[in-house]
Amino acid sequence: MAEIRETSLGLQDNTDLLHRISDRLSVRYAGIFAAETVERYVFESYAALARTAKISAYLPATTEHFANDRLHALAKSKGSLASGIPEVLFVCVQNAGRSQMAAALLNVESKGKIRVRSAGSMPTSELDANVVTVMKEMGLDLSREYPKPLTDDVVRASDVVITMGCGDSCPIYPGKRYEDWELTDPAGQSIDTVREIRDEIHERVKTLVASLTKEATLS
Amino acid sequence: MAEIRETSLGLQDNTDLLHRISDRLSVRYAGIFAAETVERYVFESYAALARTAKISAYLPATTEHFANDRLHALAKSKGSLASGIPEVLFVCVQNAGRSQMAAALLNVESKGKIRVRSAGSMPTSELDANVVTVMKEMGLDLSREYPKPLTDDVVRASDVVITMGCGDSCPIYPGKRYEDWELTDPAGQSIDTVREIRDEIHERVKTLVASLTKEATLS
Repeated sequence: MAEIRETSLGLQDNTDLLHRISDRLSVRYAGIFAAETVERYVFESYAALARTAKISAYLPATTEHFANDRLHALAKSKGSLASGIPEVLFVCVQNAGRSQMAAALLNVESKGKIRVRSAGSMPTSELDANVVTVMKEMGLDLSREYPKPLTDDVVRASDVVITMGCGDSCPIYPGKRYEDWELTDPAGQSIDTVREIRDEIHERVKTLVASLTKEATLS
Repeated sequence: MAEIRETSLGLQDNTDLLHRISDRLSVRYAGIFAAETVERYVFESYAALARTAKISAYLPATTEHFANDRLHALAKSKGSLASGIPEVLFVCVQNAGRSQMAAALLNVESKGKIRVRSAGSMPTSELDANVVTVMKEMGLDLSREYPKPLTDDVVRASDVVITMGCGDSCPIYPGKRYEDWELTDPAGQSIDTVREIRDEIHERVKTLVASLTKEATLS
């Protein structure tokens, strides 16, 4: 027999909460986006994260963060928000290891002079535990990060897109600089191997910062 | 060394094509949705399908179909489009087997009297080959179907949501009828087992049609 799931017994209905988030973001993006667009961003960001999230308690907070970041990216790509700093996007499959490490390391190495994002073609429910550990060894806290699906807005806003083993799943946009970094996937690897992957990403990130800083100086 | 991917050599940039699709759908939903909303639906639907699609040649066509279906669902949920017929959504993990079979069977059994959709919490790149075969044995052609991620709009538009092994990934909305069907996942099963799963889904679908038709007659 089919099992009938009652909403009163099951997961929370977060509709009211999502409306409140939409209202806050509508105020922030007033004059840039219609309230209808902002509401759709909030509700679809929630559904996208809920598809793969394990712990639903954090969902409203991550939804607000994710929707805000996507709206910011969209505003930038449409020229509605000025941004003098380069924007870099790292894309891997699960957004649970490589792209998360790269984003955190680039954030640190660029000292806030680059806007950094990461995403996955098939995001998983949480970050790889070994990845969190080896980043913590460097003093970088990834405990509040979460895997996110790759969206149109963040690719469109990025000046540089760096893919890591996600094949052709990243849409191509004109005028961007694309790089593909071949790296071992940390999933299922020993902590020593994950440390090696972290260090390799760190080296590549330093080279990237140098090249972007040089470009910025020259332009 | 990092490999630089040139847009001229790699995947197509479909921006112009997506703008043409947006223009067509904006005309269709004029007075219901702002052009900005329609454009976002088209571009994000494209990015969502591109994340997991294997064959990019079909992407523009499936994008237009998917975006139109989502906008139709959103318009219905907002009361902008009248719909006298019940809407049913099947959700499984990959949207490659169970939910696709259920949707096709309900389409046939309801004789167009129910609007049917399917989606997955982690959609895969294509339908299960055995699933396509056993449906073809019944005269049902699934060759043009494609796995789609679960989105807010289609859950919101649905009167009945039927989940199949996707756990809690389906957002809960008030006033809906939810059922959870326990079914073997056809992935990796023999064709005989897939036939049995198909037949079990068929029986459940017939019961569902009877119950929805009865409800419609009574109300």
